[in-house]
Amino acid sequence: MNLKKMVGIEAANYVKDGMVVGLGTGSTAYYMIEELGRRVNEEQLNIVGVPTSSASRNQALELGIPVKTIDEVTRVDLTIDGADEISADFQGIKGGGAALLFEKVVASYSDQVIWIVDESKMVDKLGKFPLPVEVVPYGEEHLFRIFEEKGYRPTFRLENETEKKITDCGHSIIDLHLDVIEDPFKLNEELNQLVGVVEHGLFLNMVHMIIVGEEKGPNTVTVVR
Amino acid sequence: MNLKKMVGIEAANYVKDGMVVGLGTGSTAYYMIEELGRRVNEEQLNIVGVPTSSASRNQALELGIPVKTIDEVTRVDLTIDGADEISADFQGIKGGGAALLFEKVVASYSDQVIWIVDESKMVDKLGKFPLPVEVVPYGEEHLFRIFEEKGYRPTFRLENETEKKITDCGHSIIDLHLDVIEDPFKLNEELNQLVGVVEHGLFLNMVHMIIVGEEKGPNTVTVVR
Repeated sequence: MNLKKMVGIEAANYVKDGMVVGLGTGSTAYYMIEELGRRVNEEQLNIVGVPTSSASRNQALELGIPVKTIDEVTRVDLTIDGADEISADFQGIKGGGAALLFEKVVASYSDQVIWIVDESKMVDKLGKFPLPVEVVPYGEEHLFRIFEEKGYRPTFRLENETEKKITDCGHSIIDLHLDVIEDPFKLNEELNQLVGVVEHGLFLNMVHMIIVGEEKGPNTVTVVR
Repeated sequence: MNLKKMVGIEAANYVKDGMVVGLGTGSTAYYMIEELGRRVNEEQLNIVGVPTSSASRNQALELGIPVKTIDEVTRVDLTIDGADEISADFQGIKGGGAALLFEKVVASYSDQVIWIVDESKMVDKLGKFPLPVEVVPYGEEHLFRIFEEKGYRPTFRLENETEKKITDCGHSIIDLHLDVIEDPFKLNEELNQLVGVVEHGLFLNMVHMIIVGEEKGPNTVTVVR
């Protein structure tokens, strides 16, 4: 079985009847939503999904999973989402799929967060994966230059050869090629203070459980802070 | 002469030939832009304006002032803008006109910033004027509840009786009714860390000169930090 599918199905087991469930975005979350759809249809599982992107929303609706926006619920019981990189101390980078803003909003209001990844995403320190920074288009060239001056090796995320990627919220994404992030908390504060930065892909102290897809089976890690 | 017009004309004197000039937004900045238009037409003043709102952009274009966006210039020489409240230590609240994001972006990349106000805007401590917080609509009800729980007495900025105000960038505005902000720097950090907050109306350590309209004439204060 492919590792992404394995952890997607494994994570779906944590969803119980009556839950409000944050639905992540990406190729691993896809299998989790598939499995939830199966349980809704075959096992009469009764849940409300809170999607983190239009892609996840469409998938859920096609499968017959009822959905609400984050503002239509008071709280999310459990969010299951992928991650692009997870460090040895369980901090993460997300946003390869450009849905980081909605993913971060939903995770912020979730009682429990599970990340599902294949083992290639587990690293010692964060930073090999480019860190996405979601920015207001007005002033983005100046932010780009600031990142260049700091040595962060920025690139604009592109939609195609000539156009910049625009997020669901109308923002641009600048990817920072940092190689190693020695202090993610310091970088978090630094980025948040910059005028025009909406959010970024550092997800710090946000996850409660990680399910890692390994060849021998899913490896479940409970995060204690 | 009306005090806003007086300081608008006074501030325009600081604009020199060849400058890139940030054009503020609001009823006081309006007179400054008017005066710059007069100088462009009557005195052949040669400048490029960087407007902070579509209103200021339209006004400048009608007056024949050439305009560029912030991303089309490498730097702004001087920005002249209004302010909604200025404290005794020269920190400010801006955003009554909902243009705070673009105003903050332009001010961030300006070598010099002049605020022009009538004397009613000068206060001891900030906070009587509601502090605008620009937020991503997705998750805004949760941010609103967080502000309520903190005792910040939030209200959504409205466009009319039934619809929320949407900014030029597609965001909502939540006004915080704080009465007194004892530590604006602490509040700045607190707001910047919240997921979904794009920017807010605290402009800290951003101004270099303030021109206050008083009955006896314009009172120019140079800010030394």
